Amino acid sequence: MTRSELTQLILAAKIRKELSWESIARALGASKEWVAAACLGQMTMTSEQARTLRGLLDLPEEAELLLQAVPYKGSLPTAIPTDPLLYRFYEILSIYGLAIKELIHEEFGDGIMSAIDFRMRIDREPDPQGDRVKIEMSGKFLPYKMY
Amino acid sequence: MTRSELTQLILAAKIRKELSWESIARALGASKEWVAAACLGQMTMTSEQARTLRGLLDLPEEAELLLQAVPYKGSLPTAIPTDPLLYRFYEILSIYGLAIKELIHEEFGDGIMSAIDFRMRIDREPDPQGDRVKIEMSGKFLPYKMY
Amino acid sequence: MTRSELTQLILAAKIRKELSWESIARALGASKEWVAAACLGQMTMTSEQARTLRGLLDLPEEAELLLQAVPYKGSLPTAIPTDPLLYRFYEILSIYGLAIKELIHEEFGDGIMSAIDFRMRIDREPDPQGDRVKIEMSGKFLPYKMY
Amino acid sequence: MTRSELTQLILAAKIRKELSWESIARALGASKEWVAAACLGQMTMTSEQARTLRGLLDLPEEAELLLQAVPYKGSLPTAIPTDPLLYRFYEILSIYGLAIKELIHEEFGDGIMSAIDFRMRIDREPDPQGDRVKIEMSGKFLPYKMY
Amino acid sequence: MTRSELTQLILAAKIRKELSWESIARALGASKEWVAAACLGQMTMTSEQARTLRGLLDLPEEAELLLQAVPYKGSLPTAIPTDPLLYRFYEILSIYGLAIKELIHEEFGDGIMSAIDFRMRIDREPDPQGDRVKIEMSGKFLPYKMY
Amino acid sequence: MTRSELTQLILAAKIRKELSWESIARALGASKEWVAAACLGQMTMTSEQARTLRGLLDLPEEAELLLQAVPYKGSLPTAIPTDPLLYRFYEILSIYGLAIKELIHEEFGDGIMSAIDFRMRIDREPDPQGDRVKIEMSGKFLPYKMY
Amino acid sequence: MTRSELTQLILAAKIRKELSWESIARALGASKEWVAAACLGQMTMTSEQARTLRGLLDLPEEAELLLQAVPYKGSLPTAIPTDPLLYRFYEILSIYGLAIKELIHEEFGDGIMSAIDFRMRIDREPDPQGDRVKIEMSGKFLPYKMY
Amino acid sequence: MTRSELTQLILAAKIRKELSWESIARALGASKEWVAAACLGQMTMTSEQARTLRGLLDLPEEAELLLQAVPYKGSLPTAIPTDPLLYRFYEILSIYGLAIKELIHEEFGDGIMSAIDFRMRIDREPDPQGDRVKIEMSGKFLPYKMY
Amino acid sequence: MTRSELTQLILAAKIRKELSWESIARALGASKEWVAAACLGQMTMTSEQARTLRGLLDLPEEAELLLQAVPYKGSLPTAIPTDPLLYRFYEILSIYGLAIKELIHEEFGDGIMSAIDFRMRIDREPDPQGDRVKIEMSGKFLPYKMY
Amino acid sequence: MTRSELTQLILAAKIRKELSWESIARALGASKEWVAAACLGQMTMTSEQARTLRGLLDLPEEAELLLQAVPYKGSLPTAIPTDPLLYRFYEILSIYGLAIKELIHEEFGDGIMSAIDFRMRIDREPDPQGDRVKIEMSGKFLPYKMY
Repeated sequence: MTRSELTQLILAAKIRKELSWESIARALGASKEWVAAACLGQMTMTSEQARTLRGLLDLPEEAELLLQAVPYKGSLPTAIPTDPLLYRFYEILSIYGLAIKELIHEEFGDGIMSAIDFRMRIDREPDPQGDRVKIEMSGKFLPYKMY
Repeated sequence: MTRSELTQLILAAKIRKELSWESIARALGASKEWVAAACLGQMTMTSEQARTLRGLLDLPEEAELLLQAVPYKGSLPTAIPTDPLLYRFYEILSIYGLAIKELIHEEFGDGIMSAIDFRMRIDREPDPQGDRVKIEMSGKFLPYKMY
Repeated sequence: MTRSELTQLILAAKIRKELSWESIARALGASKEWVAAACLGQMTMTSEQARTLRGLLDLPEEAELLLQAVPYKGSLPTAIPTDPLLYRFYEILSIYGLAIKELIHEEFGDGIMSAIDFRMRIDREPDPQGDRVKIEMSGKFLPYKMY
Repeated sequence: MTRSELTQLILAAKIRKELSWESIARALGASKEWVAAACLGQMTMTSEQARTLRGLLDLPEEAELLLQAVPYKGSLPTAIPTDPLLYRFYEILSIYGLAIKELIHEEFGDGIMSAIDFRMRIDREPDPQGDRVKIEMSGKFLPYKMY
Repeated sequence: MTRSELTQLILAAKIRKELSWESIARALGASKEWVAAACLGQMTMTSEQARTLRGLLDLPEEAELLLQAVPYKGSLPTAIPTDPLLYRFYEILSIYGLAIKELIHEEFGDGIMSAIDFRMRIDREPDPQGDRVKIEMSGKFLPYKMY
Repeated sequence: MTRSELTQLILAAKIRKELSWESIARALGASKEWVAAACLGQMTMTSEQARTLRGLLDLPEEAELLLQAVPYKGSLPTAIPTDPLLYRFYEILSIYGLAIKELIHEEFGDGIMSAIDFRMRIDREPDPQGDRVKIEMSGKFLPYKMY
Repeated sequence: MTRSELTQLILAAKIRKELSWESIARALGASKEWVAAACLGQMTMTSEQARTLRGLLDLPEEAELLLQAVPYKGSLPTAIPTDPLLYRFYEILSIYGLAIKELIHEEFGDGIMSAIDFRMRIDREPDPQGDRVKIEMSGKFLPYKMY
Repeated sequence: MTRSELTQLILAAKIRKELSWESIARALGASKEWVAAACLGQMTMTSEQARTLRGLLDLPEEAELLLQAVPYKGSLPTAIPTDPLLYRFYEILSIYGLAIKELIHEEFGDGIMSAIDFRMRIDREPDPQGDRVKIEMSGKFLPYKMY
Repeated sequence: MTRSELTQLILAAKIRKELSWESIARALGASKEWVAAACLGQMTMTSEQARTLRGLLDLPEEAELLLQAVPYKGSLPTAIPTDPLLYRFYEILSIYGLAIKELIHEEFGDGIMSAIDFRMRIDREPDPQGDRVKIEMSGKFLPYKMY
Repeated sequence: MTRSELTQLILAAKIRKELSWESIARALGASKEWVAAACLGQMTMTSEQARTLRGLLDLPEEAELLLQAVPYKGSLPTAIPTDPLLYRFYEILSIYGLAIKELIHEEFGDGIMSAIDFRMRIDREPDPQGDRVKIEMSGKFLPYKMY
């Protein structure tokens, strides 16, 4: 069983059992954002989380070890995503990318926002003109240093 | 003068005059995020903003009209950005993309977060273990409808 | 069963049962354009539509849940389509793209035609010199806003 | 002067003289859709149209001949357009492509919609929930024939 | 069974039964060029041709319907073909492309040679210095029209 | 002056002097197909042809030597041509490629049609239903040999 | 069985039976270079060679016909090979390509070295500072001809 | 002056002065293969060679230093060369690549033919059926070693 | 069984048996860096190593021969790796590449660092501000030579 | 002046003044690795370093400000480098990439080696069988954390 076959199993079981990411996240004791990414093969679970998930979704035995192995990360089937929801994030990067770069450097100097020491929250933002998706990203600033 | 030549002029003048995006944004009466994107050729200015920017940066006369023309958008020189700061955002999309998709659909059903009816804020988040970059995105949820 | 395996099942059953998209659309209570897209894995069905389609095409049980899950969208096997019928639409975008952009901006200002709040009709247009394909697209104009 | 340099000249003159595509189209005696495409280097003008356009926009002498030469067509700088307005049309092709193919074949049999014997109209469609962009395409159906 | 699996079946049966394209074409009542393309999944057969081919090659039952369905066209595994025989045609397009474009426009004005209302013949041209491959293509000229 | 700058000069002079490829070909004593390709930087002229062309088009002195140098061949700006006239030839290769391969091998065995020992003619084929473009290609068959 | 499945079978049998390409070549009566290429799906065998190879490697019956069919050629999984031994040949083309072109044109005029009427030898060249790989290529010069 | 501008200067001067690579190579005291590659920006000259070449071709003063700087190597404008002479070498790699790999490993074990400790000769091979291009490559075998 | 199927078997067995690369390396008598690469299909084992590994991981019989065959090397699924750990190495090459080139040429002249006569060590470097990954690469310098 | 034009100026001046990276690094008070990267447009200088470099290389006035601006990073002209010295590093990533990933995860768990909190040294390693290039990389380990 490869990791992407396991991802297929997880998604199928989640649909069949009509579970939400929220409820899986509660069972695993972590945020819904981290748990969804982990189930989709991007993060590494603890042995306890792996055992819990296996029970919750009736996964085969070898899934438990595989969920604890560090996966080869990257979840998009094409370099530029075709799915409209995902493409909009690529578009934001394309339209605002250089502006983001300018503003972070203006505030922090040369360096980057970490994508490893990083967390994210996705919420509904009620709005009379139509509710909005609100995404908060927080990543440690890592400065380039002279040596 | 093409729009990208104007962008070069703006960036050179900003460095020469030692202006910050914050101060340019105040002069133009909009957020620093929108103003930086507009100066970099991704948004369309009002005639008043174009006149103000021209004065602020000593731009040539034709810049004023060009800043009011709708630009061909997209600011990255390659499909996958080579700049480390920008690449991290591409990586977040690659690692968290499917998780974001799952969670937005779980909360809202089928549809997308708009990248047009959209706003963004970039802030410093003080942290004793090293300050963090905080990015808030807010986009209207647009549902797919049956017809 | 992945969503694209389900698409293969649907297409095979439709051929075997000699059903038209028109008749499937009538059974599902939506337009032929939306229904064909949904069957091909691009739209999300209601539970009633999924049950109806399953009955109509003798699909396996798990198809019913899968048709209600939001799919990963994008239906072309290559970035530039090789199929001549589809390529012509890519060519129209390539030849008329900038003209469309100029004319929409002239009429509406900076913004886009939504591909989400969108509908489409495909009809036969009788013509003595050879009938024509007529395609009407209608998408909400979404303006960029300053913030 | 290459054709794309001429396109830059035309766009700059149009902005400077504050002309609309509508008014240029009236002067040239053709639709705004065809005229915008022709000015952007995708169609071939008659000698009279070329002379009229040259006068209207104060173009240099050699422009007149160049406007009558058949151009190398294709107006997008990248295979997948980065501009959000244009990308939406690419997305429509990606999401609805196979559905369009199925429906045209169902109605007409094997063949294509011509992109040469083709015309297009772009209009504003008033709507209380926000005006819409309406695009009508009409292309002759060309059947594949056995031989 | 997908259409490309059927193509594999056809090619295997043709080798096993030691049939030539000439003889299959005679049985189907069309040119060898059209028949080879149809067998390889690029053209749509009549019900009679499909039945004949099925008998000739002992194909399974579902092949008969599949041969009458309009296929997703395009038969090359890579955008630039690696096979030397096929590459030479790509090379001819690369070397002579602009010359062909110039000469067709000189003779016919702006427009294209149709690839749909199109036929082709491949023949042996005896030559004392080594026989030659002779290919005749004939496609209707389709003019661009102003509107 | 690079070879592609010379090509631009030749095309501009041809338009300005309102010469046809036919007449240039007569002056150079070769077919219009070869001459157009040579002018566009794909073939090598004799010193006499280079001198004649220079006189005919008032080219600068260094053009004469450059026309006799073997060029770096390949005239398409992108791997898949965007120009509709040229794309149709790419499409013919995509749709009929494997059929052409099958038929040449059936007639000649393993080998290729030469694109070097090659000639081509482009003619108008009158037809009551609309004139047709006729293209004849003739290339020496080159067999693979065992060694 | 596809041709590439047959290639896998051949390679597996060769390893299992501990045969060298030299010995297979002797059995088939051709050079090791041609035989290795033929076994790897790039050349077409005679019926006698196919029968011999089938016996030698215990291949299934249908392999015999498949080895006599002209294959779709091209053996690299990516356009730029990742394997270091193969990449070095790509690198030689990249570094020496234009020099090779200049020198062949200087000696022969405009034309190419045939890759069809071609043979190759690979030998060990003993050298006190470390033995060397010696590759001799010989291809017929094919001149471009005016017409 | 960049290195590729210098290459243009060298090629133009060579044509204008009607020098052969053979004669330039004699003047510089190295093989024609190495000298052509060095002139085309792929090898590094000694100070004496640079001075000689500058005199021979009347190059500007800064050329002398530039010819002694190690260049950024790689001389092909596209990953897959469009020029037919060069493409044939790419085709040889594509067709014979895996066979070459098998045969070198059979003779030498795991390792590569060096493209650095490498030399090449290009010669005319007279042949009654048409002269042939003969290319000899010799590269040191470099074995992979366990550690 | 292909080599990449064997790689999957090895990885699965290593997880199931909870073995470390360190312990496998000790059993095979080579460094952990070389052994991990060899297990992942990039290096060639001796017959003794292959037998040992087969025993250690309960691999099927044919694995033993396959581990001794020279593999087709290159282990990344995409040209630019999506996995963050691997991407950082690509980024180092992108950011520091030209600097590395300049410094090696300054010290050694024109030539390369061998990737064949090469060894590597990966170690933990304790650091109070967070431990560091230390990578040492050592490759023989191979000079380009004139000939 | 763009940053890449400044890079050209710096390289030309360095050659003309016959300065080494070592000596420039000493003048700027940082390592040769960091200084070469900074001069090549990948790092940001302090105002003092910028003034020193300007004096050392007689750069124009605006260079001083530009050297202090954070550059758009990434120094390779193509995604896969063509230069042999640089390609070897890409090859090391391709061959050893997965092994490096396995070994870092074995030692540190899930996370990456930072390419920002990173330093590098390039040295000559004397060796009787030919001196070696020694590269030491040290990057902080950044662990993924659950949240």
